[in-house]
Amino acid sequence: MSNAGTLAESPAYAALTDRFRRIALVGDALGILGWDQATLMPEGSAGGRAEQIAALSVLCHELLVAGDVRDNLDAAGEMLDEAGEESWEAANLREMSRAYLNAAAVPGDLVESAARASAVCEVQWRQARADNDFASLVPALEEVIGLVKQIGLARSEALSLSFYDALLDEYEAGTTVAKLDPLFGQLATDLPNLVNEVIEHQATRPEPALPPGPFPIARQRELAAELIQILGFSFDSGRLDISHHPFCGGAAGDVRITTRYSEENFTESLMGVLHETGHALYEAGLPEAWRYQPVGQALGMAIHESQSLLVKMQVSRSRPFLQFALPRMQAAFGGEGPAWNVENFYRLYTRVERGLIRVDADEVTYPLHVVLRYRLERALLSGDLPLGDLPGAWNDGMRDLLGVVPPDDASGCLQDVHWPSGAFGYFPTYTLGAMAAAQLYAAARAAMPGLEEDIAAGRLSGLVSWLREKVHQRGAYRPAEDLLIEVTGQPLDFRIFLDHLQTRYLDRG
Amino acid sequence: MSNAGTLAESPAYAALTDRFRRIALVGDALGILGWDQATLMPEGSAGGRAEQIAALSVLCHELLVAGDVRDNLDAAGEMLDEAGEESWEAANLREMSRAYLNAAAVPGDLVESAARASAVCEVQWRQARADNDFASLVPALEEVIGLVKQIGLARSEALSLSFYDALLDEYEAGTTVAKLDPLFGQLATDLPNLVNEVIEHQATRPEPALPPGPFPIARQRELAAELIQILGFSFDSGRLDISHHPFCGGAAGDVRITTRYSEENFTESLMGVLHETGHALYEAGLPEAWRYQPVGQALGMAIHESQSLLVKMQVSRSRPFLQFALPRMQAAFGGEGPAWNVENFYRLYTRVERGLIRVDADEVTYPLHVVLRYRLERALLSGDLPLGDLPGAWNDGMRDLLGVVPPDDASGCLQDVHWPSGAFGYFPTYTLGAMAAAQLYAAARAAMPGLEEDIAAGRLSGLVSWLREKVHQRGAYRPAEDLLIEVTGQPLDFRIFLDHLQTRYLDRG
Repeated sequence: MSNAGTLAESPAYAALTDRFRRIALVGDALGILGWDQATLMPEGSAGGRAEQIAALSVLCHELLVAGDVRDNLDAAGEMLDEAGEESWEAANLREMSRAYLNAAAVPGDLVESAARASAVCEVQWRQARADNDFASLVPALEEVIGLVKQIGLARSEALSLSFYDALLDEYEAGTTVAKLDPLFGQLATDLPNLVNEVIEHQATRPEPALPPGPFPIARQRELAAELIQILGFSFDSGRLDISHHPFCGGAAGDVRITTRYSEENFTESLMGVLHETGHALYEAGLPEAWRYQPVGQALGMAIHESQSLLVKMQVSRSRPFLQFALPRMQAAFGGEGPAWNVENFYRLYTRVERGLIRVDADEVTYPLHVVLRYRLERALLSGDLPLGDLPGAWNDGMRDLLGVVPPDDASGCLQDVHWPSGAFGYFPTYTLGAMAAAQLYAAARAAMPGLEEDIAAGRLSGLVSWLREKVHQRGAYRPAEDLLIEVTGQPLDFRIFLDHLQTRYLDRG
Repeated sequence: MSNAGTLAESPAYAALTDRFRRIALVGDALGILGWDQATLMPEGSAGGRAEQIAALSVLCHELLVAGDVRDNLDAAGEMLDEAGEESWEAANLREMSRAYLNAAAVPGDLVESAARASAVCEVQWRQARADNDFASLVPALEEVIGLVKQIGLARSEALSLSFYDALLDEYEAGTTVAKLDPLFGQLATDLPNLVNEVIEHQATRPEPALPPGPFPIARQRELAAELIQILGFSFDSGRLDISHHPFCGGAAGDVRITTRYSEENFTESLMGVLHETGHALYEAGLPEAWRYQPVGQALGMAIHESQSLLVKMQVSRSRPFLQFALPRMQAAFGGEGPAWNVENFYRLYTRVERGLIRVDADEVTYPLHVVLRYRLERALLSGDLPLGDLPGAWNDGMRDLLGVVPPDDASGCLQDVHWPSGAFGYFPTYTLGAMAAAQLYAAARAAMPGLEEDIAAGRLSGLVSWLREKVHQRGAYRPAEDLLIEVTGQPLDFRIFLDHLQTRYLDRG
């Protein structure tokens, strides 16, 4: 048997690294095209851009499944031995195989049919939501669900996973129903009570006051740029722009954050920027030696979300962060008056409400929105829940989990784009990310006893260096679950997340 | 034998149109990446961008030469008959063959060596120009010239053209020494005398006065946007931004102009924008039914330059245009005083000077800069002029043609990036473009007797529609020479250009 050096030097592996380097570079080009599309592309150029993106996507897919990729994966795989499996090259080969299997699992014409059906369904969804007319969406959504089932089946066979696990795996490798059910089951049991307690508790404190505007957009941008640079974001290899839906995109070594501003309220936009900065720091901190290789990429959606939520939820809504940031906010806007104190901002940023809309939800109720969607999408896919019965099941679920019932489907089962766009298995990553964020931040505080004092003094580089070393620089060397054990000493544990919620929202600890 | 319908319906032709569509879309992606690079990419992202551009360029090349392109070209070619040769499909096939032959002519490793050598040489050129040190550039430029010779030889064999014609052909198909020599010979004979006459003549008129600034950049941009929209540029499928070197780029249906502004002087920047608008109107006016096909693309550099120079030189520096534009300039800047009258602006925009620098040259002396470079690059490539003797030959040529001698190489043979970047055969297109612009504009005036009154009244749509119909919408259906005959009744005729110069600069006619 050969050793890891031999794998690294084998022609099959070399051919694969060349191939995947090209794929990554086309992916980076797509990242820039997508960013441009969302930020400053002229409206009339949308048709051409869609064609460019489709052409490059097809090229990526072809580069991944065509030619001798499979043969090279087989040949390189034969050069692995037990020691070799610990090498970055071996991990790279594992990630290459995963990418290949995922791409090859689903026939090209099925991918295309699904993409087309989703595009049609998304358009109809926009109208259906505006019209509050679920029935009008049913035929198109039925078709999407049918195609998702076919895709899930194809992936299930190719990846030797059960049907829904095969869908989950696309967004966060290694996520399974077997792991989710106990986690989400516990949340479904514990969180409704916690929500009750928190709402009672917060009734004993003063209502938070929104600082009065207007807040000039130029000053909001300066403030955001100042804070994210203190967090370690670099404008030497990144940008901050405006788009309708905030995101973090761009390419390797060119990480671009977007946000939107409102003159009336700067607090939400600022949190949005901090959220995207968590994503951006992850992307910018990936191991440069493995740039353009699969093992040098970020892990799945759950770990990515953990990085954004760690910055936005764990850090930026904490008292220490607000102690540091509030004077800068005041300086940016000349803020004076009763709203401008740390305790008020803390209450503002930790306000809990039984809301109808997931994207507006606070940290405590958000997982219940996810649990509802997790249950419903599994029932829809299994056939247990006929699509026509979705609005009723949605409203029942909201009553059970959150104690509120949507007055209409627009603020109920029509609120999210995910299902119309074919994204089934995606919702759980939001809450896995929130749990991982809590667990990683707890580990960070344990590792750095003076962390909160540092944050209060505006010294954030210690935390960011720790994240870089423990998470970002590791790329996809270890699967998400292993990484979490390595860094925090244990697999994902919902109790850490619940502890965090109790501590913060019931003022314990 | 089959007819054109058969060509259009043949599987070989269908496979080719698919293939070339993908190539065009990757080219469009490259256009957006290049635009982003020049306008707003973070500085630290340059390395990654170079990798993305290289990867997409290689993909383009592979799509063009790999697989069954050659077989399909042969199979489709057999379906042409005499009638078919008049169809757009036949013209498309002709352009496909040309693209294929050009790409397949030069071995991939030679392309790569040349690209690498040029990149190195460009960097050294920047330093050598800054240091005014020609000797330091010689080794790197020698290597570039050696590789250009190899490329020329390879293209010469594949395209059945003589060596230098094969280089010319890359920038404007059909350009040959046999055609250039008489044109450029005449210019070299006639223009030095004309320059003398013009300079004597302009000495009898008052010196033009520069309008005093400062000119706020935001107002300059508004003015530019106003004027180019009147010319027909649409911000619904285009943009106007800032870059160090002005250009027109982007993608099909997404045409992006750039410029740079100086607060002290708005007149040069404005002319720069109008120049790029000429390019932009050409790109935006290409036949939409043939978008993404070779026959739907613009012709070569000379015709492209004719469109920019027609707008900038023929139209925008004319009295009628200034009559229309001056009040708008005054409104933009609140301009008042002796500089703000049409005659002064006309003198400013038609000032002739024996300068050292090509890019700063006026319309009359510019061709002499080109003739010099044409002569010298041919002598360098043939070996008649050893590279070490270039500075002396340059200065001799400047004395003979322009009557001025550079005080140093930085303002002499080191001024242009073209040779260090490997672009030999490019310079002639500037002057071919200037001649074609004069000829096309003369035809436009003949076709539309009220044209100058329309322009003076700000009615530019007639001219733009004429250009769109006669040039833009024709794409590459006819080779440049045929198009010129079709539109103007004759091949390129230097006398029309000389007439224009005499009329404008000696106030005749």
